[in-house]
Amino acid sequence: MPRHALRDGLRVEAGKRPHLGRTDPRDTLGLSGKDEAADVVARCSERLEALQSLLASEDRRSLLLVLQGMDASGKDGVARALCGAMNPMILRMAAFGVPTKPELRHDFLWRIARELPERGRVGLFNRSHYEDVLVVRVDGLVPEETWRPRYGQIARFEERLAETGTTVVKVMLHISRDEQLERLRERAQDPLKRWKFSADDLRKRDRWDAYMAAYEDAIEATGTEDAPWYVVPADRKWARNALVLEILTHVLEGMDLPEPPPPEGLPPGFLPGT
Amino acid sequence: MPRHALRDGLRVEAGKRPHLGRTDPRDTLGLSGKDEAADVVARCSERLEALQSLLASEDRRSLLLVLQGMDASGKDGVARALCGAMNPMILRMAAFGVPTKPELRHDFLWRIARELPERGRVGLFNRSHYEDVLVVRVDGLVPEETWRPRYGQIARFEERLAETGTTVVKVMLHISRDEQLERLRERAQDPLKRWKFSADDLRKRDRWDAYMAAYEDAIEATGTEDAPWYVVPADRKWARNALVLEILTHVLEGMDLPEPPPPEGLPPGFLPGT
Repeated sequence: MPRHALRDGLRVEAGKRPHLGRTDPRDTLGLSGKDEAADVVARCSERLEALQSLLASEDRRSLLLVLQGMDASGKDGVARALCGAMNPMILRMAAFGVPTKPELRHDFLWRIARELPERGRVGLFNRSHYEDVLVVRVDGLVPEETWRPRYGQIARFEERLAETGTTVVKVMLHISRDEQLERLRERAQDPLKRWKFSADDLRKRDRWDAYMAAYEDAIEATGTEDAPWYVVPADRKWARNALVLEILTHVLEGMDLPEPPPPEGLPPGFLPGT
Repeated sequence: MPRHALRDGLRVEAGKRPHLGRTDPRDTLGLSGKDEAADVVARCSERLEALQSLLASEDRRSLLLVLQGMDASGKDGVARALCGAMNPMILRMAAFGVPTKPELRHDFLWRIARELPERGRVGLFNRSHYEDVLVVRVDGLVPEETWRPRYGQIARFEERLAETGTTVVKVMLHISRDEQLERLRERAQDPLKRWKFSADDLRKRDRWDAYMAAYEDAIEATGTEDAPWYVVPADRKWARNALVLEILTHVLEGMDLPEPPPPEGLPPGFLPGT
């Protein structure tokens, strides 16, 4: 099977409910191992380098990649893989943690809108407005009459972004509960990983099923043709990175970015033969 | 000669004036070629990975790397090399272009202060407040009675940062005028590099000597023990990246970052044998 068909298998059809319990987080989508994954990463990185330049030259549209996933599912790892592939002056990253007091004095999309990528740029959200229908819902931080309407508010927000030139892609990194335990233990034990460890992650881990249900609801309610969700198996880091780079490459290819015109007004002699 | 001695040779002594005209931009500081440079990058990246974790765990101090250099001297390239070496959630990058109207309604350090790295983080400035004594001075954008006092204002600003926990390191990427011409031609000719090309770069190029004098003045006036300048030869990209990573590793090593204490309050059974 060609790779694009495999990668397309990760895309959740608009309006469909994913069945996370029946999706294997150890799946590699046909990648035979680390070597093949490294080849995919190298090939995609080369394409991404070219595509980001065309995006910047065109200076008209932008791309937003939203990364979601349970703790230790690899959001930072993917961000790092993207950094290696793209010019940091084009890639704009934002991480969304617990909202600050000033942020809480606005509606939940206010802080999100402030971090949107400008024209010609790729935005990467490490967590996002989806936390407002995930942790906020599972922990009951606001009543249902507040979080329930957010699905529609998010869908309309993203629809407007798509209409005004920002292609939106949403990726859920799908890790298994067992693999998460391994990684959290490693964070607690390894002094070099301890800065990432929070005892609060263990509490969230206890509500795994509620989180999975909230993810399924969010993906079902906000997956559209213009702002689709991809569920990426994330137990194997090498497969996870290769798959996200493949998705991003595919999306940028689909934007049909034009080659820029030659520069004008150069002084004679600047270019050889002029 | 051991590598640290070579690298230390790039450091401009506090209060000393560098002689850029007598510093060879093609120097590799003892690196024999791309292979050895790649080894240095790999070794430094591994150390930086550990050091950034300790910095984040300590959560008390921060590091600011200021990158300056003429157009096409490789500021983006260095930023990219650092991205590959450090977790993007710890590395905070900011680029400073032509000031916006709201920025111009404040003093020149206002926009800089807003982008300083928080505790536990590494900040990377792609251009900086030094533009306010470089292009601003060379192009006469403000009168001398405005730019002249800025040297002292910058030195006092950086002194305060050092005192309050931010280690400041300033790097000038030193490219030759010939190498810059090659790179600007490539940007104009290669469709994939064209987004970086600006005809304005050619105008600045015509005032090369004035820029070098302005750099020498800035380095002489603001180089201190606590916030030193390094002049890094930048005609060879592989040497440039390896040298900046060596400097950064050296600076972080010098911060004597402590190993974090083990986490407390873990539930029984979470870690094996508990």
